[in-house]
Amino acid sequence: MLLERLLRKERVAAILKVLADNPNKIYSLGHFSEMFMAARSTLSEDITIAKRVIESLGEGYVETIPGAAGGVRYIPGLSRMDKDILIEQLGNMLKTSDRIIPGGFIYMNDVICSPDIASKVGIIFAQKFKDKAPDYVITVETKGIPIAMMTAKYLNVPLIIVRRDSRVTEGSTVSINYISGSSKRIQTMSLSKRSVKKGSNCVFVDDFMKAGGTANGIIDLMKEFECKVVGIGVLVESSTLNKRLVEHYISIMKLESVDEEMGQIHIVPSLNY
Amino acid sequence: MLLERLLRKERVAAILKVLADNPNKIYSLGHFSEMFMAARSTLSEDITIAKRVIESLGEGYVETIPGAAGGVRYIPGLSRMDKDILIEQLGNMLKTSDRIIPGGFIYMNDVICSPDIASKVGIIFAQKFKDKAPDYVITVETKGIPIAMMTAKYLNVPLIIVRRDSRVTEGSTVSINYISGSSKRIQTMSLSKRSVKKGSNCVFVDDFMKAGGTANGIIDLMKEFECKVVGIGVLVESSTLNKRLVEHYISIMKLESVDEEMGQIHIVPSLNY
Repeated sequence: MLLERLLRKERVAAILKVLADNPNKIYSLGHFSEMFMAARSTLSEDITIAKRVIESLGEGYVETIPGAAGGVRYIPGLSRMDKDILIEQLGNMLKTSDRIIPGGFIYMNDVICSPDIASKVGIIFAQKFKDKAPDYVITVETKGIPIAMMTAKYLNVPLIIVRRDSRVTEGSTVSINYISGSSKRIQTMSLSKRSVKKGSNCVFVDDFMKAGGTANGIIDLMKEFECKVVGIGVLVESSTLNKRLVEHYISIMKLESVDEEMGQIHIVPSLNY
Repeated sequence: MLLERLLRKERVAAILKVLADNPNKIYSLGHFSEMFMAARSTLSEDITIAKRVIESLGEGYVETIPGAAGGVRYIPGLSRMDKDILIEQLGNMLKTSDRIIPGGFIYMNDVICSPDIASKVGIIFAQKFKDKAPDYVITVETKGIPIAMMTAKYLNVPLIIVRRDSRVTEGSTVSINYISGSSKRIQTMSLSKRSVKKGSNCVFVDDFMKAGGTANGIIDLMKEFECKVVGIGVLVESSTLNKRLVEHYISIMKLESVDEEMGQIHIVPSLNY
């Protein structure tokens, strides 16, 4: 793309827009040099200014990667204040008694389907798992998909959706049975054979975790593909059960108890992220 | 959020970052004035520069809304060049013969689950349907969710996910039966009663449309909620059937034919968007 010659104050803003729209994507200095018809030295200075702006906002950082394959990229982050606002918002939304659904569940569809909340949770997970260098974000249909998609966007890796049954439009699949940790029922999950490359690292993202049976199932399924689950992130974990089938995971909120009779939900921020 | 005093070149970039990260969200001048400890007149000038930057990039526009409830917001758009690149990329990806799945389907999971592609398609749909002022983006599980979520993000409205069956964690639901236009089978879809407000306008987004049976089902389901479907957007429409159950919709690509025997897929850009 060729742009008319911009002034520095315009160019810095344009560079930051491109970087922020494409998190974790590396752009060479040559790319911007061509785009803005400006010398590399000029762009280096622009990028230094862009770095300072992101630091001031507290929203992650702009990283310069040296070498031939190098360039510059934006690693997204949520500012301390935005994180606090999110936690407060989630706490307030999720504790209202009309969310209680028979069986001790809570209705969360509006929370997980809010682009604003899903984006922020996606940024937190991306920030947390970036160093594991995942090749994919993986989730199981249906309610984890919005948050998982946002995590994938901020990590700049593809999303993998595991199905509850095999569909005709996916080609040949690998299926496994697993036991739901809380209900002890046998469930099935399946994934198209062509969906993941052997030897990949995946981050599993879901909206809710009770005993961790689904997470455990995903770990087993990934073994079938010779892949590894290098991180687990859930929006809400329920601490109503004492034992967990998985050990390492992060959560944003922790559901302490649901009292159906009294109409009370006790939910608190998790301390493990 | 209070930031140290920034220079204009830094402030313009910071403002554009905030606006671009929160498409279609209105920010008052007072918000930025507080954030940057700068006079409103100064910020007005900053925003004029930000507008020019977005215009140069060809990525939508920054709109100033006058009046007491007014402010400034970013309406996302895809530049002509990015649109062309997307169409070319989709064409190249989707025509490879190994995508053919018995039954004349094509494997598209990698396409719909690419954050980059889903984001761009989301921007195109958001741009197209913005003037209909939708209150929600609606989709039916599972494969339409990533694109629908991105459309919701760029429109800044909640996403609604219609389920294929009713689950325990959604509370009371409204279910309808509908007839799939291509296979003529009776199918069910259901939606939690509390998910949509009466009298709302929705945009339906899906990955694939054959005869339009699902779209038609969504229109019927929305009637039960006294809501209206004001727009339909699909990534790929199949033109292998002559008649359509719905009339008004947009698509990005048109699947002309799938020749299972010869291993050939004929897919072209749609002209209707």
